[in-house]
Amino acid sequence: MQILESVDAFRQARRALPSNATLGLVPTMGGLHDGHISLVKQARSSCDFVAASIFVNPAQFGPNEDYSKYPRTFEQDVKLLQQQGVDLVFFPSAGEMYSPHHRCYVDPMGFDDLVEGQCRKGHFRGVATVVTKLFNIVQPTHAFFGQKDAAQVVLIKRMVSDLNIPVQINVVPIVREADGLALSTRNQYLSPVEREAATASVLHRGLARAQDLFQNAKKDGKTTVDAEMLRDVVRQEYEREPLVTSIDYVSVGSKETMQEVSNVDTSNGAIISVAVKLGQCRLIDNIVL
Amino acid sequence: MQILESVDAFRQARRALPSNATLGLVPTMGGLHDGHISLVKQARSSCDFVAASIFVNPAQFGPNEDYSKYPRTFEQDVKLLQQQGVDLVFFPSAGEMYSPHHRCYVDPMGFDDLVEGQCRKGHFRGVATVVTKLFNIVQPTHAFFGQKDAAQVVLIKRMVSDLNIPVQINVVPIVREADGLALSTRNQYLSPVEREAATASVLHRGLARAQDLFQNAKKDGKTTVDAEMLRDVVRQEYEREPLVTSIDYVSVGSKETMQEVSNVDTSNGAIISVAVKLGQCRLIDNIVL
Repeated sequence: MQILESVDAFRQARRALPSNATLGLVPTMGGLHDGHISLVKQARSSCDFVAASIFVNPAQFGPNEDYSKYPRTFEQDVKLLQQQGVDLVFFPSAGEMYSPHHRCYVDPMGFDDLVEGQCRKGHFRGVATVVTKLFNIVQPTHAFFGQKDAAQVVLIKRMVSDLNIPVQINVVPIVREADGLALSTRNQYLSPVEREAATASVLHRGLARAQDLFQNAKKDGKTTVDAEMLRDVVRQEYEREPLVTSIDYVSVGSKETMQEVSNVDTSNGAIISVAVKLGQCRLIDNIVL
Repeated sequence: MQILESVDAFRQARRALPSNATLGLVPTMGGLHDGHISLVKQARSSCDFVAASIFVNPAQFGPNEDYSKYPRTFEQDVKLLQQQGVDLVFFPSAGEMYSPHHRCYVDPMGFDDLVEGQCRKGHFRGVATVVTKLFNIVQPTHAFFGQKDAAQVVLIKRMVSDLNIPVQINVVPIVREADGLALSTRNQYLSPVEREAATASVLHRGLARAQDLFQNAKKDGKTTVDAEMLRDVVRQEYEREPLVTSIDYVSVGSKETMQEVSNVDTSNGAIISVAVKLGQCRLIDNIVL
């Protein structure tokens, strides 16, 4: 496994691969867990070569977010990637990725109006920009993203289509703990009390209740379900839990655009996505109806 | 020469080229003249294969600009490209390039504050977006742009650097008529009276006078030249000409950023760029000091 810290070094390693081989990219911010590993396994099983990037992207963090304290676990990450048979690791510094003269961003218009965008102004612009850069540097044939960041998945698909980026996007299901908590690097921020299964899994329990409600309505032959009712069911679950310090949002949005809907068509479905704070730790989760 | 109207058809033709061959792209909006041909010749002489695109990009025209009446001379353009030995022509419709769901733009922050950007809000975003798309579709190794659009050249170089686009940018000097008028598709808008050499070449005469002034100062051993004095010399030339209906701007800007400077360092130089209207026709020109 080669670890490359500069754009030029990575390009050179890329050119050394056979030109007709497939190359799968798993972009990460490090702090690897089984969710990331499921992306790597998927890449490994479907591509000739696998690259992973480890880069905590300053452009996608807001001024009051956790950029400086975001977990950096490089040694351990490298071991995990090596175990999975990754070929190339791109591990640039912030200075290598953003020159002081940087001016051009990929701007996904309207994404700041989505609930996750409203909470994190400029976040999606930062994601779109860094993914474009990584695609141009790594030049993968395939790239792998987790369903956990549901709005990010919609964004990347939109961007690849809008900008004609020649990369096939593969979306991999959420990996959960036994109690239903979706894996996240930020779970490390949870205190032992917050982490207690019953507490943390509240996120998933709320989603699962809304899903049951939707499935029952569908079985009963209903063609639409009131979206606000679904939001209420989830919100009530979170309001009942004293360790939930705030509910950033409970969204019922279109699968294609993540924009809020007022009714869910039972034949089309929707995505319920949520963000809540447990103490200082912001957690997100979602379920596809 | 193959003419391809869809992204898929172009990609297929691109894949048929040898993978280690160089491919030069000349992006155009059609209305081809000797300025474009000089770009094609440069591409032809330095690359194994040459592609040209013909696409009048709606995203770079303002609401009050000439998108609908912009000259479209496809048959003649194709003949000219064939004569130059072009291999692939990409000729998409607006619908092929922009879906109704299009949301993602490449935004070159600050370029709207440059004089050319102030006059044409959103213009550079449209240019950056379409060039990114064309690069992703055509996947050239080299691309060729004319120095005539000086701010566009600065933009494309900035964008390629910021987004790590794997394309080498080549800039080709302005081609001028015998009287000094820079070639432009929009010269067709000039009435015979406006077009009279003495009138139209006023653009270049203003620039040439400022250049003389700068060169003399340099010869006299001066280390800086007052930028406002250079602007005044050019402006006076235009104000003297009754057929100049308005002066959009006279800019003396940095070669790297096109931002206005107050003094020109005689060892570094600068770019003087201008936009004026002759009747209804907006003409731009520039000179590199």
